[in-house]
Amino acid sequence: MFGAVIDELIEALRCLPGVGPKSAQRMALQLLERNRAGASRLAAAIDVAVDRVQRCAKCRNLTEGSLCIVCANPRRDQSVICVVETPADLFAIEQSGTYQGLYFVLLGHLSPIDGVGPDAIGIDQLLQRLCDEEVGELVLATNLTVEGEATAYYIGERASQLGVNVTRIAHGVPLGGELEYVDGGTLAHAFISRKQFS
Amino acid sequence: MFGAVIDELIEALRCLPGVGPKSAQRMALQLLERNRAGASRLAAAIDVAVDRVQRCAKCRNLTEGSLCIVCANPRRDQSVICVVETPADLFAIEQSGTYQGLYFVLLGHLSPIDGVGPDAIGIDQLLQRLCDEEVGELVLATNLTVEGEATAYYIGERASQLGVNVTRIAHGVPLGGELEYVDGGTLAHAFISRKQFS
Repeated sequence: MFGAVIDELIEALRCLPGVGPKSAQRMALQLLERNRAGASRLAAAIDVAVDRVQRCAKCRNLTEGSLCIVCANPRRDQSVICVVETPADLFAIEQSGTYQGLYFVLLGHLSPIDGVGPDAIGIDQLLQRLCDEEVGELVLATNLTVEGEATAYYIGERASQLGVNVTRIAHGVPLGGELEYVDGGTLAHAFISRKQFS
Repeated sequence: MFGAVIDELIEALRCLPGVGPKSAQRMALQLLERNRAGASRLAAAIDVAVDRVQRCAKCRNLTEGSLCIVCANPRRDQSVICVVETPADLFAIEQSGTYQGLYFVLLGHLSPIDGVGPDAIGIDQLLQRLCDEEVGELVLATNLTVEGEATAYYIGERASQLGVNVTRIAHGVPLGGELEYVDGGTLAHAFISRKQFS
């Protein structure tokens, strides 16, 4: 409708998550009408990132060097590894400021129905690290979804066989959560995992 | 946090309308984790569009050639010009399939508070067209906002002085609109503009 070049831009913008035909059209027109400098900057940033960003050799996090910022930091506690599904999860944990150990980023979760097995999410690499390094604790922080739970269970079993102490992050009522509005599954978790009141 | 290259990509993505820090982060990570081919395609599409898309010499619509698709089409009714604020408005009217005339795209609206005067939205160029071409009707289809109404009023006054028949698209209850849920301003418009029932 707008001509081949603009139509291609609209179509290309749809590769962004959460962007449908209408949003893509709005984005394309806004870039071309009002922000061509920003558009060129975006194109350059994409090219540089696609060219230079790779996986951290140690933890599979996205990084520009061979090691990511966390793995390259000698002040991190080398005896704890936290398993997360995505770099965004890692970022969320870092933002909370509570964790000082290392990570292992699966970049996905076990999903046999989609053909995603242990190899595809680097579990062999993780187990190799557990053998090679002196790991005192492996914290499983995969999502509390069916796939995330299955992934945690699988990794937990394999790591336990290697004699590693495996823990799982707690699940329950979130801070500020009002019981009235918390879903049943979370409440059930909160009851099952209840602790002694001291 | 993710390193300079990824941080720059996240920052650059924020030039897209409706994209905040969280969405930008999600987009950047998704592109780098799962869709590098799509990312490269997007970067190329942006570069080509920024390089080749310009304003139509006749109607200021975005186009790749010197004339846009509508102006270049000899089968369009050359005696009617419809004034819209943006290419997206033009697209919406084209999609409705009711209008066969030409357009004039303001790429904005009068907004003295932001320093946008008649020159900035090409009103001189529009008035010149009204003088040069045989225009039987000028349809004002700016938005029904304060700025859109002011723009319509200004253009309507100037065009009337040139002896052009000026019309404004109808405003009222939309198709499928239930009176109960229609806002008061729209209802007032619908009453003021009521027509003889035949």
